[in-house]
Amino acid sequence: MSFINHWLRADIQAINAYHVPASTDMIKLDAMESPFPLPDELIAQYLACLADADLNRYPNPSADDLQQTLRDLMDIPADFGMLLGNGSDELIQLLALACETDDTVLSVEPSFVMYSMIAKFTRLNYQGVDLNDDFEIDLPATLSAIKAHNPKLIFIAYPNNPTGNAFDRKLIEKIINSTDAMVVLDEAYYAYADDSFLGDIAKYPNLVLLRTVSKIGFAGLRLGLLIGAQETVTELDKLRLPYNINTLTQVSANFLLQEKEQIDKNAKAILVERANLSNDLSAINGLVVYPSQANFILFKAPKANVLFKALKDQGVLIKNLSAAPRLNDCLRVTVGSAKENAQFIKIVKNHYG
Amino acid sequence: MSFINHWLRADIQAINAYHVPASTDMIKLDAMESPFPLPDELIAQYLACLADADLNRYPNPSADDLQQTLRDLMDIPADFGMLLGNGSDELIQLLALACETDDTVLSVEPSFVMYSMIAKFTRLNYQGVDLNDDFEIDLPATLSAIKAHNPKLIFIAYPNNPTGNAFDRKLIEKIINSTDAMVVLDEAYYAYADDSFLGDIAKYPNLVLLRTVSKIGFAGLRLGLLIGAQETVTELDKLRLPYNINTLTQVSANFLLQEKEQIDKNAKAILVERANLSNDLSAINGLVVYPSQANFILFKAPKANVLFKALKDQGVLIKNLSAAPRLNDCLRVTVGSAKENAQFIKIVKNHYG
Repeated sequence: MSFINHWLRADIQAINAYHVPASTDMIKLDAMESPFPLPDELIAQYLACLADADLNRYPNPSADDLQQTLRDLMDIPADFGMLLGNGSDELIQLLALACETDDTVLSVEPSFVMYSMIAKFTRLNYQGVDLNDDFEIDLPATLSAIKAHNPKLIFIAYPNNPTGNAFDRKLIEKIINSTDAMVVLDEAYYAYADDSFLGDIAKYPNLVLLRTVSKIGFAGLRLGLLIGAQETVTELDKLRLPYNINTLTQVSANFLLQEKEQIDKNAKAILVERANLSNDLSAINGLVVYPSQANFILFKAPKANVLFKALKDQGVLIKNLSAAPRLNDCLRVTVGSAKENAQFIKIVKNHYG
Repeated sequence: MSFINHWLRADIQAINAYHVPASTDMIKLDAMESPFPLPDELIAQYLACLADADLNRYPNPSADDLQQTLRDLMDIPADFGMLLGNGSDELIQLLALACETDDTVLSVEPSFVMYSMIAKFTRLNYQGVDLNDDFEIDLPATLSAIKAHNPKLIFIAYPNNPTGNAFDRKLIEKIINSTDAMVVLDEAYYAYADDSFLGDIAKYPNLVLLRTVSKIGFAGLRLGLLIGAQETVTELDKLRLPYNINTLTQVSANFLLQEKEQIDKNAKAILVERANLSNDLSAINGLVVYPSQANFILFKAPKANVLFKALKDQGVLIKNLSAAPRLNDCLRVTVGSAKENAQFIKIVKNHYG
């Protein structure tokens, strides 16, 4: 037995590393990325900012300028606190580290896999509660799990990934009111949703939000943010690793995220494409298309594995969820550009045609 | 009592957030940064790489190109595994997360404060073992602490921060041989040291190294690396958060770190400056100057607090360690450019003259 097999805890050895499929030269509709590159007319200015960055010096430890830019972009009131992370993942991990040994993380299922993964990484208990068959929160089951397991942290993605729906706001409010846990609403897809809990932070002391710029055109920046009451953020900030947001991210994001108009315009374009894509999929016999408030669509397809492979063989990569619990024969397609979506739809039509 | 004071564990509430002093327009000799900016002739090419980066897409999950560049820069054999982090801090945290509940982290003291901080963040026990009065490892005390506390992880900075010395290699070898713990040698200052354990990884299965590009000109990138046996790294990699190294870091570092000749030349210049600075400090009556294998010098000064303030008032920021245990009246100065060092020495001379 090698050193590491002897040394490392068994539950980590047992997991498979997060797998990212090869996607070179493919139409990439698997990861909720925005199809829009940087506008050409911004690039010169953007590079000029980077040219001025002192890479031999440590970054600004609090990333003040970038925080202000994010406030302006997302209309975050000045009296809320903000914590930045390398993707929401780092912030999910920070919240888990804030818990104590033997604490429990609760989430609904199916949802974003990193909630349970990070609970495992950080040696916490994890409790999943099944959603209803229509992927709505099962309130009685959730409240009873909260009572039974007394979680310290509750993660709810709003809208939810991979199902695409936004849960009933009233159910979430009941959950927040039912518990002493910190309730973390992950609004990664806020730009494509009809509703947000940003206006509710002052109302619920145990509520914090997560957001990210990954789904609005900047997945390469790996920049996530937590928004909550100022005193909550001040305490959580003690767990943040110093200088966690590097200079390149600060300078780039601070420049690029000032283009609010362009970012909003791109999001609106995706909403139009989402409606088209949803209609086109619904028109194909045998497919069940779920409603979406995000930049992706979940659908159920006969022999989904075969369709997934057909798409892949023809250069279109989507996400195959058909082996996941509760998602039998389900596939998830990111809303891409009109051209990408058309190519995707063409292949699906041909496949069943 | 507010929600967060009720919710957050007391040991985190009790700590103060990592404090970074203001340094605008100061000569910054407090943080082991390199004084050398990017060479002008590189900037156009560097920006061209960044212009081509697809920021709307997630980064390369394994950062393969950057890993190869780091291997070339640091002469890391192809059969060793490598794990990248946002600074060494993320890797220290990942190692701590690999431990089990109730495990113990051991380090010598004084050393890099993040070892004990991250042990606390990750809810592990921490055991510090005092160095000797000359800041050498106290082998009997260390071996006896290892026996008593059975640590899972042992962190040794080689060379050590904030003392600047590299411990006796034979003592470290004895520690590695004495334990089933993973021994983590933090070689953050490798570029300024006479020795390294890079050649010893194959010999000791329980040995891994940490390095960083922060001290060789790229603190703004926040890029650290762990080097170890391939099978060790493959298992530890399961704890890495997906896409942790963003596109900007990958593209920038991959380009900039190919300039091995320039980086080596800068490091050599710092060695010359370190010798001069050490001589100049030693020539000042009343100062005790400790030997350094790093890009900083620890020295003991009469009424160090007063000298620290005099320097600060005259625009030179160094690190005041005089309140730290075992470091009474000690200050730490980073080796800067010839001009910066001269300004620092001038103020110290005047202060005592």
